[in-house]
Amino acid sequence: MLRWQGRDVISIRDFTREEIESVIAKAKKMCADHELLRGTVLASLFFEPSTRTQFSFNTAIQRLGGSVIGFAGSESSSIAKGETLRDTIKVVEKYADLIVIRHPLEGSARLAADVASIPVINAGDGANQHPTQTFTDLYTIEKFQKKIEGLSIGMLGDLKFGRTVHSLAMALTRFEHIKLRLISPPNLRMPVPILHELENVLTYSETEQLDLRGLDIVYVTRIQRERFADIEEYEKVRGTYVLDRKSCEQLKPTATILHPLPRVNEIAPEVDQLPQAKYFDQVQNGVPVRMALLTLLLRGE
Amino acid sequence: MLRWQGRDVISIRDFTREEIESVIAKAKKMCADHELLRGTVLASLFFEPSTRTQFSFNTAIQRLGGSVIGFAGSESSSIAKGETLRDTIKVVEKYADLIVIRHPLEGSARLAADVASIPVINAGDGANQHPTQTFTDLYTIEKFQKKIEGLSIGMLGDLKFGRTVHSLAMALTRFEHIKLRLISPPNLRMPVPILHELENVLTYSETEQLDLRGLDIVYVTRIQRERFADIEEYEKVRGTYVLDRKSCEQLKPTATILHPLPRVNEIAPEVDQLPQAKYFDQVQNGVPVRMALLTLLLRGE
Amino acid sequence: MLRWQGRDVISIRDFTREEIESVIAKAKKMCADHELLRGTVLASLFFEPSTRTQFSFNTAIQRLGGSVIGFAGSESSSIAKGETLRDTIKVVEKYADLIVIRHPLEGSARLAADVASIPVINAGDGANQHPTQTFTDLYTIEKFQKKIEGLSIGMLGDLKFGRTVHSLAMALTRFEHIKLRLISPPNLRMPVPILHELENVLTYSETEQLDLRGLDIVYVTRIQRERFADIEEYEKVRGTYVLDRKSCEQLKPTATILHPLPRVNEIAPEVDQLPQAKYFDQVQNGVPVRMALLTLLLRGE
Repeated sequence: MLRWQGRDVISIRDFTREEIESVIAKAKKMCADHELLRGTVLASLFFEPSTRTQFSFNTAIQRLGGSVIGFAGSESSSIAKGETLRDTIKVVEKYADLIVIRHPLEGSARLAADVASIPVINAGDGANQHPTQTFTDLYTIEKFQKKIEGLSIGMLGDLKFGRTVHSLAMALTRFEHIKLRLISPPNLRMPVPILHELENVLTYSETEQLDLRGLDIVYVTRIQRERFADIEEYEKVRGTYVLDRKSCEQLKPTATILHPLPRVNEIAPEVDQLPQAKYFDQVQNGVPVRMALLTLLLRGE
Repeated sequence: MLRWQGRDVISIRDFTREEIESVIAKAKKMCADHELLRGTVLASLFFEPSTRTQFSFNTAIQRLGGSVIGFAGSESSSIAKGETLRDTIKVVEKYADLIVIRHPLEGSARLAADVASIPVINAGDGANQHPTQTFTDLYTIEKFQKKIEGLSIGMLGDLKFGRTVHSLAMALTRFEHIKLRLISPPNLRMPVPILHELENVLTYSETEQLDLRGLDIVYVTRIQRERFADIEEYEKVRGTYVLDRKSCEQLKPTATILHPLPRVNEIAPEVDQLPQAKYFDQVQNGVPVRMALLTLLLRGE
Repeated sequence: MLRWQGRDVISIRDFTREEIESVIAKAKKMCADHELLRGTVLASLFFEPSTRTQFSFNTAIQRLGGSVIGFAGSESSSIAKGETLRDTIKVVEKYADLIVIRHPLEGSARLAADVASIPVINAGDGANQHPTQTFTDLYTIEKFQKKIEGLSIGMLGDLKFGRTVHSLAMALTRFEHIKLRLISPPNLRMPVPILHELENVLTYSETEQLDLRGLDIVYVTRIQRERFADIEEYEKVRGTYVLDRKSCEQLKPTATILHPLPRVNEIAPEVDQLPQAKYFDQVQNGVPVRMALLTLLLRGE
C-alpha cells in the first residue's frame, strides 16, 4: 500500500518504479471534475518565471475545482523582501493547501519541503530537478509505446546542462532492459556522475553521430549558443543536430519524438506533420499528470 | 441557422448584421450563472498589457463559473522566449478551451486563429482590430437608442489612429440609413481607405467644427499629443475638441455620449453628471457582451 | 442592529468596539464554504505590491467560492495610464462586487470609497491605515488571551513609522483598562499626536529598556536601517531590541508574541519554538478575519 497524502515531490529519485507506475495509472484515469478539489488553494511560487509550467499547474488545479494564489518572477521580490525562504514558506503554508515552487537555487525546494507541513512540489530548482516534467515524459512514453521497459531511447542535444534529460535518465534506471543512446557534441556530453549511476543498471552508449536508427524514443533538447566559446563551433554543431524530414527518414515508423519545449530550431517545423512527432501531445499530458499528482498528494488516492 | 461553436473572433468584418444582432440579443439575456461554463479554462495572452480589457474578459468567464490562466506584458517574455508565436499557441491550446490574445503586431490574432483548433478572440492586434470593443459599442448604442439603423452618429477626435472608430465605422456599414459625422482636426481625419468602404453604403460628412447638433450618438476618442509635430497646434486642437457642459448644450436630450476610455481631458468630469453621459455604462456592457461571445463560441448557443 | 452590507473599511477609527467585536465573533465561525460568495468577483488593485496581503485576500475570497481580478505593482501602470484614480475606480466597480486597494498615497482609499458604489477595503494607503491588519491583530490577541480589555500590551521597535502599531493603539482605545508599554529607541518613539489620543483613555508608559516583564502581549516591529543617520547608532539599537531566547526569559508563560511580518532579525529564529511565539498563527488568522469582513460587507451578516 503506497502512502501519498501529504507527501512532497522534490526529486524523481525519491520515487520507486511502483510509485511512478501508480502516477501514470492515475493520470490515465483523470478527467476534469470540478468537485474533486473544490475549495482547495494552490500556492504557485515562481521565484523565476516559467509561464508554461505555471500554466500547466494552474490548469490542472482549476480543472479539478481548486484555485490559485501566487506570483511570477518580478513580483516575488515583495514576499521575499529581506525575508528568509524559510519564513516565506511558513507564511504561505498558512494560506494554501499545497505549494508549487520554482526557485533558482538548487536545494531550495527540499528546504521548502522540510519547513512546510503541507505538500511541496518542486517545479524546478536551478539546474537540479523538475520531477513533474519527468513524470510527464514517462507518461507520454508509456502512452505511445504501451510500455517503458525494454525500449531503445535516444537523448539528443545538450546532455550536459539539460535538467530534463538528467532526470529522465535517472528515472529510467527504475525500468528493466532500457537501451540508452546519448547523442551530443563532445563538449555537451552527459556528466560523468550521472553515467556512473546508469552503469550496471541499464545499457548506454555515447555518440556524436545523429544516428536515430532503431530508436523507440528520440528525446530532443535545445543546444544553447552561450554554451560555446567559439561561435563557429556552435554553428557547426547546431546544423548537425537538427531534426528535419531528411534526418527523420532514419526513424522507425513507430518511434516517438519528444521535446520538453520551447524549441528554437533543433526540430524543423516540417517535422510536426510526421506521425512520430508527439511533443505537443507531451505538453498536453502535463495536465493529467499534474492533476494525478495533486489528487494523490491532497486526497491520498 | 448561425454556427457559433468553435468560431474565432478576429475582425468585425467577419460578421454579418444578423450575427451582430444575435450577439446583442444574447448579451441582453446574459446573467451571472456559475454553472454555465464551469470547469472551462480561458487563456488570457496579453503580449502587451491592457488591464481593462483583461479585467473585462476575466470577469466575464469567472461570472460564468470558468477560470483563467494567463500573463500580461512583462511575464510574456517567458513563454515566448525564442519561441515562435505559432509554437506558443500550439502549447497553450493544450491547456485551455479558448484563447484571448492581445499582441502588438497586426495580423497576429489571425495567425493564432489559423494555428489553434480552439476558438481565438482578438483583444487587439496593433492598430488593426479590437472586435469585442465594437460589439460592446453596438450593444450600448442599441441599449440606449433602442435601434442602430437610421441613427445620426458623430465620431470625434483622433479618427486617424483610433482603432475603435475604424472598427465601429465598418460595423455600421452593416446597418441601413446611418448618417455619420466625422469631426476631427485636419491632420487626424478618417483614413481614405476607410472612407472608400463607407461610400455608397452610408452617408458621411467630415468637419473640423465641434458641431454636435442633431446627433443621436457622440463617440469621443482621445487626441494624443505625440500625433502633433507642433505643440501649439496640439494645444489649440485640444481645447477645440473638449466636451464640457457648454459644448454639450448643443446635444439632443436623448443623445448618448460614448468613449472607449481611458479619457484624459477630452471629456470634462462635469459632463459625467449629464443624462447623456453613458461611457461608464459602456464599460459595464463589456461584461455581458463578452459573456455572450464566450458562451456562443464554447456552447454554440 | 449593526449595518454592514455595502460598507467601506478604510480606517480602524471608523469602527466602534461593538463592531470590532462582531468582526471577531464572525471570524471565529468562518470556515471554507465555497457556496457562500460563489460568483462574486473581488477586484484586487495593488498600486504597490504586497504579495502577502494580496495572498490573504485572494485566499479568503476563493475559500468562499468567489474569484479575483486584479494587478500588482508594475501592471498597474496600464489601468492608470493618464487616468485619474477616480475614473479607474468608476471603471473597476463595473466589473467587480468589492474593491481591495493598496495605494502609496494617504487618503487614496477614502477617495476610492467616496467614488465607488460598491464596498472598498483599504489594504494600506501609504503610512496611514491598514485596518484589516488591525482586525487580525485584535482577533489574534482575543484568541490567545480570551479577552482584550485589561491586558498589558508592549509595543516594541519602530513606533514612529510603524503603521500597524499606530492603528492597533487607536483600536485599543475602544477597550477598557488597557496598559500600554511603548518600548523604542529615542528617535523612534510613538508620535505625539497619537499619544494625545491615548491619554485619558488608556494607561501608557514609554521606555527605552527592553523590559518585557508582566506583559500579556509583546507586539514586535521591524527597525529599518534607513531611519538612522548614523550607522553606529543603528547597530547599537538593533542589538538592543532583538528578541532572543535570553530576552524572552522575562516573559510570562501565558504571554503572546506578535509581529506583522516580514521580520528581518528582530526576532531570532530560536524564538519560533517558544510557546509564546504566535506570529505565524497571526498570519493564518488574517484569512478568517478577511473572510468575515468580505461576508459582512457583501451579505450583510
